[in-house]
Amino acid sequence: MLPIAVDAMGGDNAPGEIVAGARRAQEDHGIPVLLVGRPEDLTDVGDLEVIEASEVIAMDAEPGASVRRMKDSSLVRAAEAVRDGRASAMVSAGNTGATMASALLRMGRISGVARPAIATLLPTPGSTPTVLLDSGANAECSPEWLVQFGQMGAVFARDRLGIERPRVALLSIGEEPGKGSPLVKEAYAALSAAEFVGAEFIGNVEGRDLLTDAVDVIVTDGFTGNVALKTAEGALKALMTALLTAMAGRPEALAAAEVLSPELDDLYREFHPDTYGGAMLLGVRGVCIISHGSTGATAMANAILTGAEMVRADVVGHLTEAVAVGS
Amino acid sequence: MLPIAVDAMGGDNAPGEIVAGARRAQEDHGIPVLLVGRPEDLTDVGDLEVIEASEVIAMDAEPGASVRRMKDSSLVRAAEAVRDGRASAMVSAGNTGATMASALLRMGRISGVARPAIATLLPTPGSTPTVLLDSGANAECSPEWLVQFGQMGAVFARDRLGIERPRVALLSIGEEPGKGSPLVKEAYAALSAAEFVGAEFIGNVEGRDLLTDAVDVIVTDGFTGNVALKTAEGALKALMTALLTAMAGRPEALAAAEVLSPELDDLYREFHPDTYGGAMLLGVRGVCIISHGSTGATAMANAILTGAEMVRADVVGHLTEAVAVGS
Repeated sequence: MLPIAVDAMGGDNAPGEIVAGARRAQEDHGIPVLLVGRPEDLTDVGDLEVIEASEVIAMDAEPGASVRRMKDSSLVRAAEAVRDGRASAMVSAGNTGATMASALLRMGRISGVARPAIATLLPTPGSTPTVLLDSGANAECSPEWLVQFGQMGAVFARDRLGIERPRVALLSIGEEPGKGSPLVKEAYAALSAAEFVGAEFIGNVEGRDLLTDAVDVIVTDGFTGNVALKTAEGALKALMTALLTAMAGRPEALAAAEVLSPELDDLYREFHPDTYGGAMLLGVRGVCIISHGSTGATAMANAILTGAEMVRADVVGHLTEAVAVGS
Repeated sequence: MLPIAVDAMGGDNAPGEIVAGARRAQEDHGIPVLLVGRPEDLTDVGDLEVIEASEVIAMDAEPGASVRRMKDSSLVRAAEAVRDGRASAMVSAGNTGATMASALLRMGRISGVARPAIATLLPTPGSTPTVLLDSGANAECSPEWLVQFGQMGAVFARDRLGIERPRVALLSIGEEPGKGSPLVKEAYAALSAAEFVGAEFIGNVEGRDLLTDAVDVIVTDGFTGNVALKTAEGALKALMTALLTAMAGRPEALAAAEVLSPELDDLYREFHPDTYGGAMLLGVRGVCIISHGSTGATAMANAILTGAEMVRADVVGHLTEAVAVGS
């Protein structure tokens, strides 16, 4: 397998934690990694190969302009490594918009794809995670794009999660077809009429269904998807924090909490975004994994493993087929 | 104080739990209550006065058509009781859309209000709840409506939560003014230019800020607001359920969970939607409290207390002033 290109400069904990995670992926799991970044900033890289890139796109930089201007940035060079056949996938915990723009401009879109979308995994207790897309790439969408998101999301659910016949649903504010914004009403009709290979459209779901096993793939525009994703993350964090605070308030409670620590650790892991190793940008001609800005070594190692798994599963080939059939 | 008109027929647990909650509000808290519904279905009403209404609008009925057609429904009669000066407020756990339509058609809009909006309280651990509006009344909104939602939300935050100078923010997918959908970008400009009396517009917030104390009033369209609200509720429920399941899986863990039950009970109450006694429809000429369909006796009693509190605070008078100044 060609190595995974890792943007060593991207993320709040770059380059230290990123390099540590990359080493773990290569040394403990045998996934070849190519670090991309400023060699002078990359210490303790072990046997990992480094592609030099002199610039770094800041976390808050304007994505499009940065990618066009900073041609020697770690993000752009990582995307080029995939385009040029030096790497099989790219992974970054840096500026999300710039990661998308680099992938889109350097790798290009899969033929027939109107807009790439970010697919994120949401935890569902005791069951397979739910795929949410678009979780932030396109703030405004057309009904036709949402249909394609559904087709791509179904492929991802199959390759990433092993769901044989994914149930695809549209995010709305009521189960009835007539509920929702004008976009959602039109998308409902378009999704009902669309062809899904090895998947089925089951209608509308609501926000409360995101973290349940009622559905496998949830389709929405990137604005709503991003709000929903961050709301879920915020709610889980608020409750987890409140729980830990409450447990530390009384000696007997603290002792009981210690007894419960195996259960609490499992829960924390199950609901923590890092567990799922990053989101994936679907629709570009290559595997592009987008990690949280707060990614540490463990999450980076998971993201690299996910990238390798997606390469092996040939998700890009399957997306290409699904979009060709669907259009 | 004039009595609170309670739709005794609305909600999954009507009329039994609704009547029980109404009695509790009157008998234990001294809030006069007027039950509205089919007398033959209302048993054990104690000293509560009953207004007869022969029809019931089903939970899944089409709101506009039902309200126009079912003139002798409990919802329509409850709204008329407020309009006619027999009641000071209405409370319903029934069909949300029909509750809004009844209030809008019978009480009318406050002069200058473009569209009424539903304001919901979100728990923020260790702090005052956050007001979210519109949480579902208007699936599609204009930037100007969002400005008015901000002005009305600020009044509600003051009267309902005692926040002296509420911080109003716009829900988006990034803090920068340039982030978001076309609606959000336009609304940002309009909110920045708008006049707020005794409140301030602090810019964009993201989904992760909903359950924090970073902001007091969050403005959004009814589609996004409803998705965010239900996503937060769903996430909290998923985590709470997973926690309880995990704790019951091992005898030592179960024993520890029992020690922790005071803390867990507090948390459950803090994060449960029933705690805040229902959402309020802002912008109609009367107090209209909208409760969850699953409302039981305790939640109904809380909703009635909230209604009474809002009448005493003269929130409708304050909304009228704020909208007059703002337009």
